[in-house]
Amino acid sequence: MQIAILLFERFTALDAVGPYEVLGRLPGARAVFVTDRTGPVTTDVGTLALSATATLDEVTRPDVLVVPGGPGQIARMTDTRLHDWLRAVDATPTWTTSVCTGSLLLAAAGLLDGRRATSHWLALDQLPAFGAQPTGERVVFDGKYVTAAGVSSGIDMALTLAGRIAGDGVAQTLQLGIEYDPRPPYAAGSPRTAPAPAVAALRANPGMVLG
Amino acid sequence: MQIAILLFERFTALDAVGPYEVLGRLPGARAVFVTDRTGPVTTDVGTLALSATATLDEVTRPDVLVVPGGPGQIARMTDTRLHDWLRAVDATPTWTTSVCTGSLLLAAAGLLDGRRATSHWLALDQLPAFGAQPTGERVVFDGKYVTAAGVSSGIDMALTLAGRIAGDGVAQTLQLGIEYDPRPPYAAGSPRTAPAPAVAALRANPGMVLG
Repeated sequence: MQIAILLFERFTALDAVGPYEVLGRLPGARAVFVTDRTGPVTTDVGTLALSATATLDEVTRPDVLVVPGGPGQIARMTDTRLHDWLRAVDATPTWTTSVCTGSLLLAAAGLLDGRRATSHWLALDQLPAFGAQPTGERVVFDGKYVTAAGVSSGIDMALTLAGRIAGDGVAQTLQLGIEYDPRPPYAAGSPRTAPAPAVAALRANPGMVLG
Repeated sequence: MQIAILLFERFTALDAVGPYEVLGRLPGARAVFVTDRTGPVTTDVGTLALSATATLDEVTRPDVLVVPGGPGQIARMTDTRLHDWLRAVDATPTWTTSVCTGSLLLAAAGLLDGRRATSHWLALDQLPAFGAQPTGERVVFDGKYVTAAGVSSGIDMALTLAGRIAGDGVAQTLQLGIEYDPRPPYAAGSPRTAPAPAVAALRANPGMVLG
């Protein structure tokens, strides 16, 4: 089972690594990090680089595709070669998934037209322009399309998908293995619960996370 | 503000990337990934490599030290050069932190003697041999020492520490930025709540996560 995780310059590390940590541990799984050309790909925060291990041409039929988001997503909204690849891969029996603004790349490739989907809360209003219906849910399944909200939601998405692929027992073991019993220090993870100054700070400067 | 994140072969990616995603976004922060020699360092699951950007000799006085865990921790329990470095860095005013079995490396370097600490739930019983007092908490502060439980707990640790360093408002904005409003699909993240078969599977095969 191949788990293909897309990388591009200025992606958000946790968008990719959260699902990798879960889906890469599925029985028989092998993760591959795919981008235009192999080599290090730098994240949005800087300093950190993840090594891509395959080019787009080398990955044609993954069992799961994970598209992360991050500020670098913007430059890829007009990357027709990437969109062609996304459509080609999606035409196989893969699960097509995204985290954060990765859903905007799926949408730009025409894959979310008429589908329910989500994205980072700051980017939800960009989905309808591509025919997608934004929801306020953290993880959205619509057939083989699975989109997750911002950054950390990729962990929830991956565990939920792991249950669909390998059964609840395997997914529960993975959740216990990564000790995913979250205790956020604040009720600040959603614009519905966060203190107003935090919401205002991000609305005034979405580039802090979205570019 | 320098955030030094230790890497070693067969570390667990999320142990390092969770805190990086939070602490690396603190105002004025710059993360550095430090190991024996610069270059790619491969994670426990395989395939994924993170690029180290500095050698141990180059990092002498970080503001925050993050030590991840993972199967590769075992080989480092007798790495005296690493232990010397951990002690030297710890002697500066740094916050000394760990995720998962990273606490066993701090303990082996003698830094947790007499202190309250935590680790992955499967490794808690290894702490007393080094004079540390294991607790069942997810994030443990004991003075400048901050230890977190397994893998995903590094996100909770980093947000809590971000609040101590930069204030609640900044930490809340970071939590909202990464949309950390977790919705685990199962009540399986702790051995206290997980279904018995999941606990048994990991107890029988801790190498699934700890090596």
